[in-house]
Amino acid sequence: MSKIEKLRGFKDYYPEDMEKREWIFQNMRKIAKNFGFQPIDYPSLEFLEMYRLKSGDELVNQTYSFTDKGNREITLIPEATPSTMRMLVARKDLLKPIKWYNIPKLWRYEEPQSGRNREHYQFNADYFGESGVFVNSEIISLACEVLNSMGLKNLYVVRVNHRKLMEAILERIGSIDVASDLSIIDHFRKESVEEISGKLEEHGIKGQKLKNLVSLLSKSYRAEEMEESLSLIDRDLLNESGYKELRETLNQLKDNGYENIVYDPATVRGLSYYTGIVFEGFDREGKFRSIFGGGRYDGLSELFQGPPIPAIGFGMGDAVLENILRENNCWESVNKDKTYFIIGIGMEGKKVANHILYDLRRKGRKVSMDYSDRNLTNSIKHASSMGFQYIILVGEKEMRNKSITLRDLASGEQKIIGMDNLGEI
Amino acid sequence: MSKIEKLRGFKDYYPEDMEKREWIFQNMRKIAKNFGFQPIDYPSLEFLEMYRLKSGDELVNQTYSFTDKGNREITLIPEATPSTMRMLVARKDLLKPIKWYNIPKLWRYEEPQSGRNREHYQFNADYFGESGVFVNSEIISLACEVLNSMGLKNLYVVRVNHRKLMEAILERIGSIDVASDLSIIDHFRKESVEEISGKLEEHGIKGQKLKNLVSLLSKSYRAEEMEESLSLIDRDLLNESGYKELRETLNQLKDNGYENIVYDPATVRGLSYYTGIVFEGFDREGKFRSIFGGGRYDGLSELFQGPPIPAIGFGMGDAVLENILRENNCWESVNKDKTYFIIGIGMEGKKVANHILYDLRRKGRKVSMDYSDRNLTNSIKHASSMGFQYIILVGEKEMRNKSITLRDLASGEQKIIGMDNLGEI
Repeated sequence: MSKIEKLRGFKDYYPEDMEKREWIFQNMRKIAKNFGFQPIDYPSLEFLEMYRLKSGDELVNQTYSFTDKGNREITLIPEATPSTMRMLVARKDLLKPIKWYNIPKLWRYEEPQSGRNREHYQFNADYFGESGVFVNSEIISLACEVLNSMGLKNLYVVRVNHRKLMEAILERIGSIDVASDLSIIDHFRKESVEEISGKLEEHGIKGQKLKNLVSLLSKSYRAEEMEESLSLIDRDLLNESGYKELRETLNQLKDNGYENIVYDPATVRGLSYYTGIVFEGFDREGKFRSIFGGGRYDGLSELFQGPPIPAIGFGMGDAVLENILRENNCWESVNKDKTYFIIGIGMEGKKVANHILYDLRRKGRKVSMDYSDRNLTNSIKHASSMGFQYIILVGEKEMRNKSITLRDLASGEQKIIGMDNLGEI
Repeated sequence: MSKIEKLRGFKDYYPEDMEKREWIFQNMRKIAKNFGFQPIDYPSLEFLEMYRLKSGDELVNQTYSFTDKGNREITLIPEATPSTMRMLVARKDLLKPIKWYNIPKLWRYEEPQSGRNREHYQFNADYFGESGVFVNSEIISLACEVLNSMGLKNLYVVRVNHRKLMEAILERIGSIDVASDLSIIDHFRKESVEEISGKLEEHGIKGQKLKNLVSLLSKSYRAEEMEESLSLIDRDLLNESGYKELRETLNQLKDNGYENIVYDPATVRGLSYYTGIVFEGFDREGKFRSIFGGGRYDGLSELFQGPPIPAIGFGMGDAVLENILRENNCWESVNKDKTYFIIGIGMEGKKVANHILYDLRRKGRKVSMDYSDRNLTNSIKHASSMGFQYIILVGEKEMRNKSITLRDLASGEQKIIGMDNLGEI
């Protein structure tokens, strides 16, 4: 073998990065639990067929799939929802509502690009068995609270839409193929207005109606602006159930204290299985891909051979989130625990130091010890280069006085602490 | 598709199991950090060649390996050490010692059996760049402290040996192929004494020497019993560096407060790359496979094209650990946080309840709300079936008095709390 190397499109996490990722996951878990969500997990390998069922061949072409030694066509899981649905329909005994979260690793065989590697972690939360404005609002609030917990409050915007409202709009302006018009609109922010208009025109949407639609799609709206903007298309849209549910959901979110949540007609989310509210979170300046995305998908349980079960959920990948946290210097609160480096002088000092080491660890402190033969000056230099905040010194004088010397490496301040009072450290 | 199903040899984790697994991982992370270890992570896919390098074809045959769409021979990682070594030798700038831990998922294509699935998580800790008795003792102490933190103190035994001592013993009793005799001894507890003796005899170890060896292998020894037991083979063994390092390591571990750590001549660990101390942890009654295993492997960095770097580490799988924790009822402390279920009566009550819901979540409480149209009696029944510990009631009377009613579902006790004092909950 010529070279030991990592696969392209994959990332190693050294402690500096990994400590941040653990902090992110810890926040996700904490907030999900506050919201009464419970953790689940499932295998990283599944039958490939399950993804054909839900997402069709396009996704299947982008999987790490292969035939295993038992001749089964299997894949590294490319998304979270199918496994979750499989687990859901397998257990008929579970009381509803069911509120689940997990943070699986997912794999896709596609060209690596910024904020998108061939493997990534994704925080998922799903609420099964109940629907309505409160439930919609709860799942979006959860996504917001996760971001808030990491210092991103006011630095993101959530764009919300409703599939039924969008379908009603397309019908009013004369769409004859709502599904394919939705997938044109799904590219609204990725292509030019001319391109999008051209494609819609080919589908028979023309003249003032096309102008009104493009005008509606070009902006986002606060809840109280919805009525006016939709009236431009057709005042009758205000009687649609999709409109009412969306508007009430936006009001409820505001009432829950979540700002920067807007009605965005261009947010449709390509995946065909959504049936109600859909939403995506972005950084305020729109520099990055979406931070999270999700929606209501009430029909999916039946596709997975279960009974009808109302369902709403979202996924939040780690890569974009890391970029945004980095951009906004949200790392200050990470890893603030004090770290100690114990130095024992001579074999006797090392032995005493070793006792203190284990004693302090059992008291929950983060402590390492110098096991080398460096002299004291070099030990202290080393502790400082390694990033320790304090040194604990056990020399002859200290042993004689049954004490230790604690030095703050940043300030240089020192104090003597009796060995019986190590709990004070 | 006829059936939505899970692959054989893989496990779904529903909340009941997953909460326990998260608790296990949380303990591992906490203790590793106390010991000054830092987290890392690496891809789940690597070039297959890397495992040939370290472990040879036997392991390679048991991997989930395949040729990807770019024609690369890759594998789901079957073990942790190669990726860790790859990361270690890739960074020449890191200050030593380097103390890393991680909890990767690993995959093996082999027959599923109790305590051994086709995928599992493994806690790994490695200490690079220093060696000696203190370092040996630190890594074994870490494994012990992780078990102690989960309530297993005194319920396990650690068997320790030293490769160099074992090699010296085999040379004294006339072994002509130390490596293959080691792999015979590796099966000492899995095969009968007759089988083992037969195989060793074929290799030319006979008579009293064979008897002495088998007698030595049949027992474990406390540090102070080592001298006598080894003298039976050859008193000169007590001058071996392997003996001295092992004995001092055992003494040091005792001094650190870790009990049940014994010299076990039959613990050799099959993998050929170990160069010093080797060790394995077992439940006291020996009902299960090993809980953890590891050792010193100073030569491996050079095989990975790096400079010589002293290395010692261990792996601890989640499956056996879960079995042992279950066996010993160590779950009591899991998920002890209080959980609340808020019930609002009528639309107005639900609105107020919703405010309280978000307020309490922001205060860090784990709270869910009843979004259904059940009547109060059914709501309370539901909360109880779902396992909530408290209900918070917001009805007409409560709203009039700007208060809530908090009921402990276990005891039935109730108290009224003013809405301005919700922090008391």
